Amino acid sequence: MLSEFDLISKYFKKPAVSASLGIGDDCALLVPTPGTQMAISTDMLVSGTHFFPDTDPRQLGHKSLAVNLSDLAAMGARPVAFTLALSLPSPDEPWLKSFSEGLFSMADICRCELIGGDTTRGPLNICITVFGEVPVGQALRRDKAQYGDDIWISGSIGDARLALAHCLEEIELKPEEVKAVVPNLQMPIPRVALGMELRKIAHAALDLSDGLMGDLNHILDASNVGATINVDALPISPVLAKQPRERQLYCALSGGDDYELCFTAPVSMRSRILEASTRTGVPVTRIGYIENEKGLRIKNSAGEIQNLSFTSFDHFSTAQ
Amino acid sequence: MLSEFDLISKYFKKPAVSASLGIGDDCALLVPTPGTQMAISTDMLVSGTHFFPDTDPRQLGHKSLAVNLSDLAAMGARPVAFTLALSLPSPDEPWLKSFSEGLFSMADICRCELIGGDTTRGPLNICITVFGEVPVGQALRRDKAQYGDDIWISGSIGDARLALAHCLEEIELKPEEVKAVVPNLQMPIPRVALGMELRKIAHAALDLSDGLMGDLNHILDASNVGATINVDALPISPVLAKQPRERQLYCALSGGDDYELCFTAPVSMRSRILEASTRTGVPVTRIGYIENEKGLRIKNSAGEIQNLSFTSFDHFSTAQ
Repeated sequence: MLSEFDLISKYFKKPAVSASLGIGDDCALLVPTPGTQMAISTDMLVSGTHFFPDTDPRQLGHKSLAVNLSDLAAMGARPVAFTLALSLPSPDEPWLKSFSEGLFSMADICRCELIGGDTTRGPLNICITVFGEVPVGQALRRDKAQYGDDIWISGSIGDARLALAHCLEEIELKPEEVKAVVPNLQMPIPRVALGMELRKIAHAALDLSDGLMGDLNHILDASNVGATINVDALPISPVLAKQPRERQLYCALSGGDDYELCFTAPVSMRSRILEASTRTGVPVTRIGYIENEKGLRIKNSAGEIQNLSFTSFDHFSTAQ
Repeated sequence: MLSEFDLISKYFKKPAVSASLGIGDDCALLVPTPGTQMAISTDMLVSGTHFFPDTDPRQLGHKSLAVNLSDLAAMGARPVAFTLALSLPSPDEPWLKSFSEGLFSMADICRCELIGGDTTRGPLNICITVFGEVPVGQALRRDKAQYGDDIWISGSIGDARLALAHCLEEIELKPEEVKAVVPNLQMPIPRVALGMELRKIAHAALDLSDGLMGDLNHILDASNVGATINVDALPISPVLAKQPRERQLYCALSGGDDYELCFTAPVSMRSRILEASTRTGVPVTRIGYIENEKGLRIKNSAGEIQNLSFTSFDHFSTAQ
């Protein structure tokens, strides 16, 4: 049976690139680029809570890193490196091979280097910490939204929740619909390039992981402002658009797992934002605006208030 | 019931000190000190693998951070900050209160700031990633041991394994013996100050987490050298010294969980090492020397080879 050290060597050890010292010592060593701040985020994915125990390990490797890179994207940071701590019930080699392939495929796309980690025996649990760099003062924070800002989101939202509903057999989708929406749940693409373009353009940003309504409220609370959004402007996929209206809104507003960016920016930046969208190939949509009046108001295109009682996904307060 | 966000606020959110942005955004932001490298280490502690499910949460909070700080100590790095990812079966408030008290007590001693994290529902699992700073080029690595170096260790070793044997009811210790050795298992003190003193003095270093024999071999392998150690020189506590000789050697050489530093340094540095020991109040002991001949030879004071068949603790290859 492979030992812990064998496992690390076989599946996770690669030559150090940006790190001056990588896997194999007590610590990894990174040399920060002068004039930058280091952006750091950590996420823990637990079998049965965040993913099905039988999830394809390649997709899981991709997603575990992607959700962390999405946090860097939301700060406008350039990915540099990450650590991986992995608890596994047994040293299952086919699983490890696929997991590491998915992980490194995502890492290579974003040029993010695995610099250290820990493997141990226990219930399946994946904890990744990512490190990115952003020029001092240019990080996109949650607390800088201003009165009059437009509210934008990247890509489309709600497909991940729709795909989850299919996986949970809450609804049944057609095979071609499954093919269209399930990758959004299993293989999200972090909006790293767009996030970096938004430095000095956006006032505030975050990534949508728990659902637009809950997440946007974090910006509003931190920035001490309110907002109105137009549900008819929400970018949703053709598959989601075919669902009943109530389900569309639930998935788009409260679904979670979107890993799109939600950001606010002054009206004067509209053309620069559209240019950034074109350069990065990531669609962006204006969905509302920031106001001084506290709270989040949800209207339709006719300006009518929509009374919705969705709440944001939360790991402890909901019975999953 | 407290939500994830409530839990974070109540038990883990403190004002940012060294971080320019702490808990509450997508990422934390650290401003690296010019001229330093960032040392990064991550460790995952799993209930039932690394600790008993009924472990006192205050001790667990202490130890979870201590074992990570020990990795910084082994590099000679100054602790700066850490992230905490925590998976819990339920939001048990008394547990969280005690855990956070133990965690912050250790953090305050080493001036290491909690800058971000993640809390989620799942089997009890604690993943901490620590960040330290060390002047460029001064990190203590595993691969720099040289022919003729002395081999030193800090403190004493073996008590944690002896305490574990008592907890597992493999042996029975007297109450005063329990009181003497159990803190070494439950509340190890990372040798941060000593590690920083050893910059520019030691050639190679690591911390003893898996047992002296296995860990020292990591230095020998990485540095492409061999060594001889003298078992009669091993620093062991009065309690361990009363145990049968075989058990003493097993605990000291193969026990693990010591979190002492093992380092190599040229003979010319002996007096400076003893001064560093005095300044930091941490005893140090010379236990052997580095040789060109590969392998690790274990002798007694009479120079007789001791044939011991212990192996290092390993999370996957041993049946725990």
